[in-house]
Amino acid sequence: MVPSARSFGRNRAGSPRLGIGDDAALLAPTVNVELVLSCDAFVEGVHFLADIHPADSVGYKSLARAVSDLAGMGATPRHFLLTLALPASRTGKWLNAFLRGLARAAGELRMLLIGGDTTRSDKVFVSLTVVGKIRPGRAVRRSGARPGDQLYVSGTLGAAALGLLMVKSQPGLARRANRSNLPSPIRAHFYPRVRVALGSWLAQNRVASAMMDISDGLSSDLSRLCAASHVGARIFADRIPCVEIPASLSPKVRATGLDGLRLALHGGEDYELLFAVSPENEAMLRRAPGIKHLVPIGRIERGRKIILVGADGKARPLAAGGWDPFGNE
Amino acid sequence: MVPSARSFGRNRAGSPRLGIGDDAALLAPTVNVELVLSCDAFVEGVHFLADIHPADSVGYKSLARAVSDLAGMGATPRHFLLTLALPASRTGKWLNAFLRGLARAAGELRMLLIGGDTTRSDKVFVSLTVVGKIRPGRAVRRSGARPGDQLYVSGTLGAAALGLLMVKSQPGLARRANRSNLPSPIRAHFYPRVRVALGSWLAQNRVASAMMDISDGLSSDLSRLCAASHVGARIFADRIPCVEIPASLSPKVRATGLDGLRLALHGGEDYELLFAVSPENEAMLRRAPGIKHLVPIGRIERGRKIILVGADGKARPLAAGGWDPFGNE
Repeated sequence: MVPSARSFGRNRAGSPRLGIGDDAALLAPTVNVELVLSCDAFVEGVHFLADIHPADSVGYKSLARAVSDLAGMGATPRHFLLTLALPASRTGKWLNAFLRGLARAAGELRMLLIGGDTTRSDKVFVSLTVVGKIRPGRAVRRSGARPGDQLYVSGTLGAAALGLLMVKSQPGLARRANRSNLPSPIRAHFYPRVRVALGSWLAQNRVASAMMDISDGLSSDLSRLCAASHVGARIFADRIPCVEIPASLSPKVRATGLDGLRLALHGGEDYELLFAVSPENEAMLRRAPGIKHLVPIGRIERGRKIILVGADGKARPLAAGGWDPFGNE
Repeated sequence: MVPSARSFGRNRAGSPRLGIGDDAALLAPTVNVELVLSCDAFVEGVHFLADIHPADSVGYKSLARAVSDLAGMGATPRHFLLTLALPASRTGKWLNAFLRGLARAAGELRMLLIGGDTTRSDKVFVSLTVVGKIRPGRAVRRSGARPGDQLYVSGTLGAAALGLLMVKSQPGLARRANRSNLPSPIRAHFYPRVRVALGSWLAQNRVASAMMDISDGLSSDLSRLCAASHVGARIFADRIPCVEIPASLSPKVRATGLDGLRLALHGGEDYELLFAVSPENEAMLRRAPGIKHLVPIGRIERGRKIILVGADGKARPLAAGGWDPFGNE
C-alpha cells in the first residue's frame, strides 16, 4: 500500500541510505548540518471535505502544509514520512489522485519519501513528518524578536480563506476548472505555495530575528510569535497585504459580508512567512528572493499588547481569532 | 494541547537543540551516527477499541509499537514526534491517562518528545514518528538472510493475541485489575515489551544477517523477511515458543477453539524479534542479552517456499495469515 520511493523522484542532494520497504529509514550523518523535524495532521472533515477538495489537492496540500513549518525556521526540506489511514473505498481512484498530488508537491519541493505507514479508517487521515536541513545555529526561532524590529509578511493574506468560501458556495467552480485555470484564491487554497527559498535566505543570512509561517491566521500566529519573544506588536491595517475580493464573485458569497482585512487577519492557511527584522538588517532585505512579495506591516514593541491600528488611525487590541481545532467554527 | 517536553523527562544522551514550542524540532549533528526513522499509526476502531483499551494502554502501546520498528533494525530509540487527533470529549481525563501511558513508555525507552501536532477528529487517531540512532553500517535489514542461516525468535508468540481475546470476552478483567496484576497475556497486549537491548546487541555485534520485528504475526512477517532476502524458510511447529492457554481461562474463550500455535503464527502484535544468524555467528548468541528468551525455530533455505513442519513431521506450505488492515477480520 505504501507508494514506492521511486514514484516520488530523487532528491537533488542524494538519497537516504535506506528508504521504504524495511522496518525504518536510514539517514546517513552529514557534517555541519542540523536536522529539522516537524509533523502535521490533515484530517477529513476537519482540514478538508470529501465533497469539496479534490484528492490531488489533499495530497499536494498535506505535504505543503507540513513543509511550511520547515520554511518558517529557514530549513531546506529534504525527506518525508507519510502516515495514511483511509477507508477501503478510497484505495482506488481517490488514492491514485492523492498520490499524484503528493508526488507533484514532493517534486516541486525536491523531497524524497523515505517511509510510511498505511492503515484503514472510516475517514481519511494524513499525518506527514518532514525532515529538513540547515546549517547549525542558523534556524530562526519564534523567540528572537526585539522591540524596534520591523514586522514583515510575505505574499497576500486571506486568499486561501477566500478560496475556501468560494469553493464552498460554488463547488462546481473547482470541478469544472483544471488546475491552471482555477480562480487564484481557490488555487491558493488547494495548492498553497510554500516560501522555502525566502525562509532559507532569511535564515542563512541571519536577516530575521524571529520567524514563523502563518498557518492559522495572522492574528493567532503574531500572538504566538510575540508570546515566544516576550514582546508586543503594533500593526497597521492599511499596510496588511489583504486579498482583494473579486468583482466577479457570486452574489451569494458577497452577501456573507466578506471583508479582505478580516480574512487576512483571521483566515488561516496562507502559509506565508511572518518575520521580524532589526533596523540594522533591514537594508539587506533588498536582496531577498521575492522581495516584491514582502511587506512591512508594523513593528515589535515593549510590553505584551498586540495592537491593530485601523485605517481610521484608531488603535485597538487585536485578539487571536484564527483557526483553533477545538474552537467554534 | 501538545504536552510539554518536560513532562516526558530527559534523554540519557542529552537534549535536542530545540524541542516543542516552535515550528519544528532541531537535532544537532552527531559524528559517526546514522539516524533511523519510522512512523506508525494507531487508530481507534482499527488497532484499539474505546470500550476495551484503557487510555494509558493506548498511549503506552502507540509508542512501543513504533519503537519496535527501530528495535527490528537494531537502532537505539532517542526522540519521537506525536500526531494526535481526538474528539473534544476525550481532551480531559482520557487525554491525561493517554499521556501518562505515553510518558511511562517514553521513560522506560529513554525517549524524548520533540514535536507534535494535535487536532480534532471523530475518533482517536495517533501517529508516531520515532527517531533512533545507530553506528553507520550496523543497521540490520530484512534482506540479508542466506540459505543455511538459522532462524530465531525472541520471547513468546501469540500472547498479545490471546490477551485481546481474553479482554474482549471479559472486559471486566482489565477494568478490575491494575497494571501489575493483569493476567500476563493481557499485559502483553496492553503494554508490550520491546526488544531494544537485544536488537541493538545483534546489530552492534553484526550477529544477525537479517532482522525485523514481529508485528503482524510470524507467518506474515517471516514471509516479508524471506521476500526481501530472496530466500525460503523451513520452521518447525514444535520449536515455536507458543503462548500457553491458561487452564483458568473462561469456558467462553475456550469454546472458540483456541490454539497456541495458531495464535503464535498469525496472532500479531507480539513485537518480538525475528532474525537470521549464519552458522559461524551462532556461537556468539550465547552472549546475547536475554539469551534465555531466544529460540531457534528453523532455517533459511534456497527457493522461495515457506514451509511449516508440523508436530506430526509433515511439511506444509505456510501462508501469510497475519494482520492486514484491509483484509477480512
